[in-house]
Amino acid sequence: MPKTIKKIGVLTSGGDAPGMNAAIRSVVRTCAYHNIDCIGIYRGYQGMIEGDFEEMGPRSVNNIVNKGGTILKSARSKEFMTAQGRQKAHKHLINSNIDALVVIGGDGTFTGAEIFNNEFNYPVIGIPGTIDNDIYGTSHTLGYDTALNTVVEVIDKIRDTASSHNRLFFVEVMGRDAGHIALNAGIGAGAEEILIPEENLGLDRLLESLQKSKTSGKSSSIVVVSEGDKIGKNVFELKDYVEENLPEYDVRVSVLGHMQRGGAPSCFDRVLASRLGVKAVESLLEGKSNYMVGLFQDKVSLTPLEQAIKAKSQIDKELLRVSEIMST
Amino acid sequence: MPKTIKKIGVLTSGGDAPGMNAAIRSVVRTCAYHNIDCIGIYRGYQGMIEGDFEEMGPRSVNNIVNKGGTILKSARSKEFMTAQGRQKAHKHLINSNIDALVVIGGDGTFTGAEIFNNEFNYPVIGIPGTIDNDIYGTSHTLGYDTALNTVVEVIDKIRDTASSHNRLFFVEVMGRDAGHIALNAGIGAGAEEILIPEENLGLDRLLESLQKSKTSGKSSSIVVVSEGDKIGKNVFELKDYVEENLPEYDVRVSVLGHMQRGGAPSCFDRVLASRLGVKAVESLLEGKSNYMVGLFQDKVSLTPLEQAIKAKSQIDKELLRVSEIMST
Amino acid sequence: MPKTIKKIGVLTSGGDAPGMNAAIRSVVRTCAYHNIDCIGIYRGYQGMIEGDFEEMGPRSVNNIVNKGGTILKSARSKEFMTAQGRQKAHKHLINSNIDALVVIGGDGTFTGAEIFNNEFNYPVIGIPGTIDNDIYGTSHTLGYDTALNTVVEVIDKIRDTASSHNRLFFVEVMGRDAGHIALNAGIGAGAEEILIPEENLGLDRLLESLQKSKTSGKSSSIVVVSEGDKIGKNVFELKDYVEENLPEYDVRVSVLGHMQRGGAPSCFDRVLASRLGVKAVESLLEGKSNYMVGLFQDKVSLTPLEQAIKAKSQIDKELLRVSEIMST
Amino acid sequence: MPKTIKKIGVLTSGGDAPGMNAAIRSVVRTCAYHNIDCIGIYRGYQGMIEGDFEEMGPRSVNNIVNKGGTILKSARSKEFMTAQGRQKAHKHLINSNIDALVVIGGDGTFTGAEIFNNEFNYPVIGIPGTIDNDIYGTSHTLGYDTALNTVVEVIDKIRDTASSHNRLFFVEVMGRDAGHIALNAGIGAGAEEILIPEENLGLDRLLESLQKSKTSGKSSSIVVVSEGDKIGKNVFELKDYVEENLPEYDVRVSVLGHMQRGGAPSCFDRVLASRLGVKAVESLLEGKSNYMVGLFQDKVSLTPLEQAIKAKSQIDKELLRVSEIMST
Repeated sequence: MPKTIKKIGVLTSGGDAPGMNAAIRSVVRTCAYHNIDCIGIYRGYQGMIEGDFEEMGPRSVNNIVNKGGTILKSARSKEFMTAQGRQKAHKHLINSNIDALVVIGGDGTFTGAEIFNNEFNYPVIGIPGTIDNDIYGTSHTLGYDTALNTVVEVIDKIRDTASSHNRLFFVEVMGRDAGHIALNAGIGAGAEEILIPEENLGLDRLLESLQKSKTSGKSSSIVVVSEGDKIGKNVFELKDYVEENLPEYDVRVSVLGHMQRGGAPSCFDRVLASRLGVKAVESLLEGKSNYMVGLFQDKVSLTPLEQAIKAKSQIDKELLRVSEIMST
Repeated sequence: MPKTIKKIGVLTSGGDAPGMNAAIRSVVRTCAYHNIDCIGIYRGYQGMIEGDFEEMGPRSVNNIVNKGGTILKSARSKEFMTAQGRQKAHKHLINSNIDALVVIGGDGTFTGAEIFNNEFNYPVIGIPGTIDNDIYGTSHTLGYDTALNTVVEVIDKIRDTASSHNRLFFVEVMGRDAGHIALNAGIGAGAEEILIPEENLGLDRLLESLQKSKTSGKSSSIVVVSEGDKIGKNVFELKDYVEENLPEYDVRVSVLGHMQRGGAPSCFDRVLASRLGVKAVESLLEGKSNYMVGLFQDKVSLTPLEQAIKAKSQIDKELLRVSEIMST
Repeated sequence: MPKTIKKIGVLTSGGDAPGMNAAIRSVVRTCAYHNIDCIGIYRGYQGMIEGDFEEMGPRSVNNIVNKGGTILKSARSKEFMTAQGRQKAHKHLINSNIDALVVIGGDGTFTGAEIFNNEFNYPVIGIPGTIDNDIYGTSHTLGYDTALNTVVEVIDKIRDTASSHNRLFFVEVMGRDAGHIALNAGIGAGAEEILIPEENLGLDRLLESLQKSKTSGKSSSIVVVSEGDKIGKNVFELKDYVEENLPEYDVRVSVLGHMQRGGAPSCFDRVLASRLGVKAVESLLEGKSNYMVGLFQDKVSLTPLEQAIKAKSQIDKELLRVSEIMST
Repeated sequence: MPKTIKKIGVLTSGGDAPGMNAAIRSVVRTCAYHNIDCIGIYRGYQGMIEGDFEEMGPRSVNNIVNKGGTILKSARSKEFMTAQGRQKAHKHLINSNIDALVVIGGDGTFTGAEIFNNEFNYPVIGIPGTIDNDIYGTSHTLGYDTALNTVVEVIDKIRDTASSHNRLFFVEVMGRDAGHIALNAGIGAGAEEILIPEENLGLDRLLESLQKSKTSGKSSSIVVVSEGDKIGKNVFELKDYVEENLPEYDVRVSVLGHMQRGGAPSCFDRVLASRLGVKAVESLLEGKSNYMVGLFQDKVSLTPLEQAIKAKSQIDKELLRVSEIMST
């Protein structure tokens, strides 16, 4: 029979994402609602190893639902990748009477959580927090919706310049392995072409598409490129390539970078964070462990951590088609 | 056998909503993609009655994906509620060789479309465009996500003032019959209490909740109130009632009003609009009629117009519970 | 000879304004830069009366430069209007070895400061913090620039709706005695007419202007109305009056309210707050007292508090003329 | 005696800036107000050479006061640098009965205007439109205030990430020859250090400052770097240099790029544009020529074009000092 859970620890790990604070707040308040103690663990697994803990009550999380970043800080911990590191971490949890963990982060975070659970049979639930939306088992990860809004707002600004000067812009967005941001923000921003890791359309197709765009009377063009695009050229090389092959184009490059991770979360991310935090704590209280909470077909649901890590969040083929039609 | 569709008309009707322009753009470009002509109809059904039409090609909808409002204008038409008015409208469509309609709007718009379809067996597909999210058959109507972001951004600002002065604010948001905006934006903005038409918690519960909030050490409180709230008092009466019963509270009121309908659409609304526009046109081309296109369990899908009008979009009970836990 | 200043107190009082936190930060860090102690006083003069003090070092004000509201809270204190209240406050300052005060607020705040200075010969410098911009001796008060941006952003959204429906909106903005917000935001938002306390153009002129606007082919109209407008009707009465006299207009009203006081300060307000905080502290250290620091002809400068209170910040006649020309 | 002016041409040239559309609108409406014809000239001087003209009435500029970019488009024209090009341009103006010009742009634009004026004794007035604020004779150029807000909003987002991960960011902002954006946005964003072309503090000072910042307990640092910084290393080289010399720092780079030129103008820029447009047209009507209109000590005023080009807009030494104190 599982031990009754009286105290829950919560941490954020990996790249920060808007909505992490809202999720921390939800975990803390759901614990309070159920009269469970809650401990904030600083700097992810590294703080767990160092025992960098702080008690959190419902008032500790006032006025953070709308703040970007994470008040618990985040870090990558090499030490946690060692058995010795994890033993230290486990000892700190036991010494502080922490009975279970909620970890907020991406697949690196979940991998660590799963190993930790396996080694110590320690109850853990994951909340997907990453702007990349590359986690299986949830239609949306925390921060993804906010990042999409940030990207389209920036591209809206770039388009002002692009169309005033009849220019072509290559805009690089985040997404090393997943093109979700590029594809959705590209459609949202009215991009003429979208380059993502999941589909290599090739350079010829790009040139052809740009040529068609010029002929069709468009005064400016935006091409959204995912960091991890497989076309074999980075955005600066793409600029050179296009200027060489389509000299009628005046090309500029913009790499959006880290701003995509910050900012006040969208309403969607705040609500999602609140829902997932409740579900994470209540799942632990029901004796569940080793799951990720997520949004599946509009319902909050559980996916085994193992599956969340190994399976791949697929690009929606319908969206690729929509993107093509929209650039008519 | 249905007539082959060669020309499609598109209109917006009812209250405007962010994303309507993105939907118009999508309809126009999907027509172009399929080599179908597209006609923009101004001022909703009234423009249909007056033959206020304009041909639209893919370049007519450049740079509108991110614009609030509707370039086709919107209006309410009393004349279209008469058989005579609808006959005039039908005549104009026939004379202009328009074979089918895409109507973008809320349930009033759909009701008109269904009657028109029944009377003339005229092909029509609806796209749900209203910030209220009160349409059955789609998890999101166009403009709803944007309105939620607008509301939480404004309440974030109000909270600055509320917490600097230890005040209580009643914030009235749109939603005459549906509390979706209030419930979601309330959770997103960290409201202490949310009053919606679907649930009448009563005035006693409100006072109790506010008293608890004060005792628990909160320095400020926001209560989000839906226009159509059934508590029997409007926001100004609520202010008086609370000040009388809880004199320790310094209460202010804010009625957000029409700003909730405007603004650049969120990425979500732009993508949704693009997807629904494609589906609307292609459904007509496949011979379908009298449906609404919507988002159901994350997939674009069809719902009979009749059902979209009559069935009710329910408030999610889970969200009510999340809201309660979050105000711990 | 004045006492050497070793410890400075800082408070915010009256209505909060964006930039107050940036000013607190500047005062605190300028003290640290000059090796002076700094004490934060909570809830304005009321906290001074109650001795609600807290030591502040440069790290106490991390990450607040961009936050709306005031971390020191604000309040109105009736007790400070009594000689007894002020004596209590003075005693607390003396007991805590606080040698001088920086007060951030509007003319009510400055009036209190001046009386306090006169009674106890206590060194005090004021920083103008109010969105209304109604203080003599500074071209900009803290929060004014931010409030203008908030207002034009909201009216931009309202215009989406207005022009989609060919409507007329009356938008009420803050400014009980001063029309600065209405006049500038009205020009910025492209308002057709602007009603301010300083100029009563009369109802006839309003009707005439609206009629001309309709004739000239404008599809929508925005009239910006200052709270303290002297036309003798509030915005709701104006709506009725116009609908009665110009039945071709479909009129709506929006009262922007408290959101105008909140939000992240604009860059202008952050820089201004930083400059004024430095000047306030360094003026005290130079032995100056009973002045307000402000921005005059683009330079940071001092104005006697008495003058700042009594003289009036005038509406710029040039702007009235620009407003009229712009609504051509 | 100068010819009576009956028709005025207006163009935008050089890099686009927010507020250019508001200035075009103001020029057009001021012409209408004075019953003068107004002609929009597309793509700057290039359109003048090609006779790419369009008549503009007050309704041509509806709903653009809040739009970034320029509806008249902008371009650089090599042909206009030749006497032959300018002759063609002059001929087109004469043939179209255009009596005078308002040119909106930066110092390249003004240089062209002055030469043109000298060669043909052609009446011309310049409006300073560039985000760089590097024009003598005006405290603010159009677009500068908006760009500052854009930059601080983006750095606010980057700071979320920086402080969640205890990182150092180098953020490159625009300003090849002038550090105005870097200095003001740096203060506004709470940067620890600001590198500008006007002051080379040297690499040692940078390292020292960063070391002090770490010791003083700051959890994150932002260094704002002007494009044209004279420290001898670009942002990527700075990253390498700091990581080598201060290995305790985890450094990231963000180059903001073209987004700084776009976006809806701030209220300040819209009002400034409106004022300058009125002054430009009315100055021409009064027979003045070869001036730039600008804002000097809060008043709209004229500066000879020659002086505006040759004199340099100086960095305010007070701001440098404020910046240093703020990073205490």
